[in-house]
Amino acid sequence: MSAYAQLAAHFHALSAIEGASAILGWDYEVMMPSGAAEIRAEQLAALAGIAHAKLTEPAIGEWLAQAADESLTEWQAANIREMKREYAHATALPADLVEALTRATTACEHVWRSARAENDFARFQQYFEPVLALVREAAVIKGEALGLHPYDALLDSYDPGMRRAIIDPVFDDLQAFLPPFIEQVIAYQAAHKPFTPLADAIPIAKQEALGRQMMQLLGFDFTQGRIDISAHPFCGGVPGDIRLTTRYRESAFTESLYGVLHETGHALYEMGLPAEWRNQPVGRARGMSLHESQSLLVEMQLCRGRDFLHFALPLMREAFGTAGATWDEENMARSLTRVERSLIRVNADEATYPLHVMLRYRLEQALLSGDLPVADLPAAWDDGMQAALGIRPDCVGNGCMQDVHWPGGSIGYFPTYTLGAITAAQLFDAARRVIPDLSAHIRKGNFVPLFGWLREQVHSRASLHSTPDLITQATGQPLNVAIYKAHLTQRYLDQP
Amino acid sequence: MSAYAQLAAHFHALSAIEGASAILGWDYEVMMPSGAAEIRAEQLAALAGIAHAKLTEPAIGEWLAQAADESLTEWQAANIREMKREYAHATALPADLVEALTRATTACEHVWRSARAENDFARFQQYFEPVLALVREAAVIKGEALGLHPYDALLDSYDPGMRRAIIDPVFDDLQAFLPPFIEQVIAYQAAHKPFTPLADAIPIAKQEALGRQMMQLLGFDFTQGRIDISAHPFCGGVPGDIRLTTRYRESAFTESLYGVLHETGHALYEMGLPAEWRNQPVGRARGMSLHESQSLLVEMQLCRGRDFLHFALPLMREAFGTAGATWDEENMARSLTRVERSLIRVNADEATYPLHVMLRYRLEQALLSGDLPVADLPAAWDDGMQAALGIRPDCVGNGCMQDVHWPGGSIGYFPTYTLGAITAAQLFDAARRVIPDLSAHIRKGNFVPLFGWLREQVHSRASLHSTPDLITQATGQPLNVAIYKAHLTQRYLDQP
Repeated sequence: MSAYAQLAAHFHALSAIEGASAILGWDYEVMMPSGAAEIRAEQLAALAGIAHAKLTEPAIGEWLAQAADESLTEWQAANIREMKREYAHATALPADLVEALTRATTACEHVWRSARAENDFARFQQYFEPVLALVREAAVIKGEALGLHPYDALLDSYDPGMRRAIIDPVFDDLQAFLPPFIEQVIAYQAAHKPFTPLADAIPIAKQEALGRQMMQLLGFDFTQGRIDISAHPFCGGVPGDIRLTTRYRESAFTESLYGVLHETGHALYEMGLPAEWRNQPVGRARGMSLHESQSLLVEMQLCRGRDFLHFALPLMREAFGTAGATWDEENMARSLTRVERSLIRVNADEATYPLHVMLRYRLEQALLSGDLPVADLPAAWDDGMQAALGIRPDCVGNGCMQDVHWPGGSIGYFPTYTLGAITAAQLFDAARRVIPDLSAHIRKGNFVPLFGWLREQVHSRASLHSTPDLITQATGQPLNVAIYKAHLTQRYLDQP
Repeated sequence: MSAYAQLAAHFHALSAIEGASAILGWDYEVMMPSGAAEIRAEQLAALAGIAHAKLTEPAIGEWLAQAADESLTEWQAANIREMKREYAHATALPADLVEALTRATTACEHVWRSARAENDFARFQQYFEPVLALVREAAVIKGEALGLHPYDALLDSYDPGMRRAIIDPVFDDLQAFLPPFIEQVIAYQAAHKPFTPLADAIPIAKQEALGRQMMQLLGFDFTQGRIDISAHPFCGGVPGDIRLTTRYRESAFTESLYGVLHETGHALYEMGLPAEWRNQPVGRARGMSLHESQSLLVEMQLCRGRDFLHFALPLMREAFGTAGATWDEENMARSLTRVERSLIRVNADEATYPLHVMLRYRLEQALLSGDLPVADLPAAWDDGMQAALGIRPDCVGNGCMQDVHWPGGSIGYFPTYTLGAITAAQLFDAARRVIPDLSAHIRKGNFVPLFGWLREQVHSRASLHSTPDLITQATGQPLNVAIYKAHLTQRYLDQP
C-alpha cells in the first residue's frame, strides 16, 4: 500500500467521524429535546476527541513525507497539500491549550447570552479576557508553526490562504467608497424610490411550500438533503446529506424566503462538490469566503435582481393568493433593496453590511495584538459605528456584544462575509459575460445555465486550487472590488 | 486512580459513542434523505468499529482483574459484573468473523426485502445459508468462551442470564394450553361478543395530538424525548434523549394509538433508569424480555383493560368528535380484544402471538443445530403453523420469510417477546395486589401509583440484579406462567 493510499484511507475514516458529528450538531439545533443538551455535549466531545486524535497521529507525518516521493495525479497532489495543512493546524496546538480554549469559550458563550440581554459588559469582560488570551496564545503558536503573522494564522483556519495582505487593499478601497455612497443612496431612495411595505400575513405552511418550490427550482436535490426549522438558520450536514434550516414569521415572509435562498446557495455548493472526492480533504468546500460567495450569489446577486423577481413574483402571488400594487415587480424590488443605517449586522442590508464587517476586522486585530484592551472595546466600537455609519449603539447588546463570534473564540472569521460578497459579484458578473442570454434564462426560471457554470467553475473544483487561483481561473482576473462597487452603484443608484 | 475508576471512565466514554450511534440510527429511519444511506452506513460502521475497539482493549481485562481486590458498593460490584459480561461477549469473537457476519447479514437483509415480496425462497436461501453458518460459528465460539450451549450463548446476548432451561418449561406449559384455549375463545367471542368495527376516518393531526396527550398522561417527559413517524415503529435514542416513532393510518387509529402506547412503555423504562448510572453498563435496561414486559404492560395489561378504556374513551371521543354505540366502552373493549387465527406475527393478537413466537423458538434452534436444513424450512414452518393455529401460509412471504430477524442474523431474540408478555402479566398482577385501589386510580386517569411502583421495582434497578432475581423481588415469586394464563382466561373468557 502506497503512503498516499494509507493517507487516503486514514482521512476517509476521519471524514466519517466528522460527518457523524455534523449530523449530531444539526440534531442538537433542530430536533433534540431541551433536556438532552448535556448528554449531546458529551457525545460531541467524545467524537471531537476521537477525530482530533486521528488527525494528529504521528503516522500521518511519516506518510506525508513518504508520499512526496510518489507519483501523484493533480487531484492527489492537491489532496496531500490539504492533508498537510489540516495536519499542521491540528498538531500546532498542544492538547491542554485546545482543552483550555474549549472550556473558556463554552463558559464565555454561556455568560454572553445573559450578559448581552442585560447589557452587562463587565461580567462579559471577565469571561472574554481569558478567551482572548488563549486565542492569542494559539495564534502565536500556530503562526510560528505555519510561518504566518498570528492574525493570518487565524484567518487561514477559516479561509485557507487568506491573508491580511490580500484583504487590506480591498477593504481600504471599500472603506473609502461606502460611507459617501450610502449617504447618496439613502437620499436617492428617499427622493425617487418610495414603496409600500408588504403587510399581508402569509401562513407558515404556504411560506414553507414556496420555499421548497424555490429550492427545487434552483437545483436543491431533496434526495440528498432536507429543510427544517431552527432558531438561527444554517446549512449543516454533509455533502449527500445536507441539512438546511430556516425560521418563519407570518408577518415577514421575505425574511424567511431570502434566508432559505441564502442557505440554498451554501447547499448547492456542498451538493456540487465532486462525489468521488467526498471523503478526502481536497474534496471539501474551499473556504468560508468562497462558501459565503455562493450563498450571497443566490440571495443577493440572483434573487434580489429584477430578472429573478420577474420570474418569481407570479409564483409568489399564486402561492399566497395575494395581489395588488404592493405585489408588483417595482414595489417588491424597492422593498428588497432598501438601504438603511442600522445597528445590527445580521439585519443589515447589502450596502451597509460591509461597514459592520470592516469595523469588526479592525477591532479584532487590535484586540488580538493587545493594542485595544477589552475594557476599551465598547467605546472603540461605538466610535467606529459613528464614523462608519453615523449612528451610535444605544447599549452594548446592540453594539460590541451583538455577535457570538468573539465569545466563541472566532477571530478571523468576520472578513469572510464581505470577501464573499465581493467574490459573489465578480462570479455573477463573469457568468453574465460567459453565458449567452443569462438574463433571459433567469426571467424564464431556467437556472440550469447559471448553476451549471458555477458547478463547473467553483463547486466541482472543491479544494483543488487556492481561493485566489480559483477566482482568477473562473473570472479571468484576481479579486476585484471594482466589480462589487459597480454592482452596488448599478443596483442602488440606477447607474450601469 | 483505582481500577474501578479507570473502568468507569472507559465505559463512560464508550457510552457516549454508542449514544451517538443511537441518535444516528434514529435519524436514518426518521429524518435522513433517501440518497444518504451509503454515507450513513459508513458513519455508523466507523463508530461501531471505534466502539468495538474500545470494548475489546486488553487494558479492560487487566483492570477487571485488579478491581476484584477493591472494595466496592453493591452497584459498583454489579457494574463490574456487567462490564465483564460485555467484555466477554465482545472479545469472544475474532474480528474477521464479526466483519464477515456484518457483510453476510447486510447482503441477506437486502436480498430478503425483494425476495420476500416475490416469494422467492430459493434466492433467499442462497444468502441465508452463509448467515446461518456464521451465526452458528459465532454461537459455538461464544458458547465455549462463556461456558454455555451455543443457543444459550445467543440468548444471553439479548437477554443476559436467559437460558433454554428457564424457557422450556414455561413454553411447554403455554404450548399445551394455548391451542384449545384459542379454539374456545373464538367460539365464545363468536357467540357472545359481537361488535361493530370502528369505521370513522380519523385525521392524522388529531391522532397525533391524542397520542401525545396519552404519552404525557402516562408520564412521558417531552423535555427528554420526542415522537416522530417511521415506517416501522420503534423506541430509540438514549436515556435522557428518547426517540419514539409510530405511523398513522386514518382508517385504523387504534393501530397507531396502541403502537404509541406500546413504545411509550419502552420509553418509560428508559426514562426511569437511574440518571447517576446512565453511562455505565449497570445503568442499562436489564434485557430484551424485561424491556418487552414494560411495553406490553402498558399496551396489553393496562391500555386494553376496562379501567383504562373507562378513562380514555371520553378523551378519544372528545378529541375526534366521534359518538354513538361504536364508540362506547363495551364495543371498544370487544374490538380491542378480538382473537383471530392469522399468519403474520406483528399483526397477531395477544392470545395467538405466543404461538407465533414458540414456532420460531423451536425452528431457530433446529436451524442453528443443523437438524433442520434451510431448504426444509418452508415445509417445517407451514406444518408448524398448521399444528399450532390450524392455518397454512399461502406463500413464504406470509410464512417463514415474514420477519427480518433471521436474515439479520438475530437468532435467540424471538423468545423475549413472549417472556415479556408473561412477565408483564406477573408484574401487573403484583401491582394490583400491592397498590390499594389501583383500578380506581386508573379509571380516574391517575397513573402515578402504577408507574411509581414500576419505577421503584423495575426501572430504577436497571441491571443491578439478574432478570429472574428482579422478577422474584418485585412480585414475590419466580416467573410464573400460571398468572399469564389466568390473565388470558379472565380477559378472553370472562372467567376470574
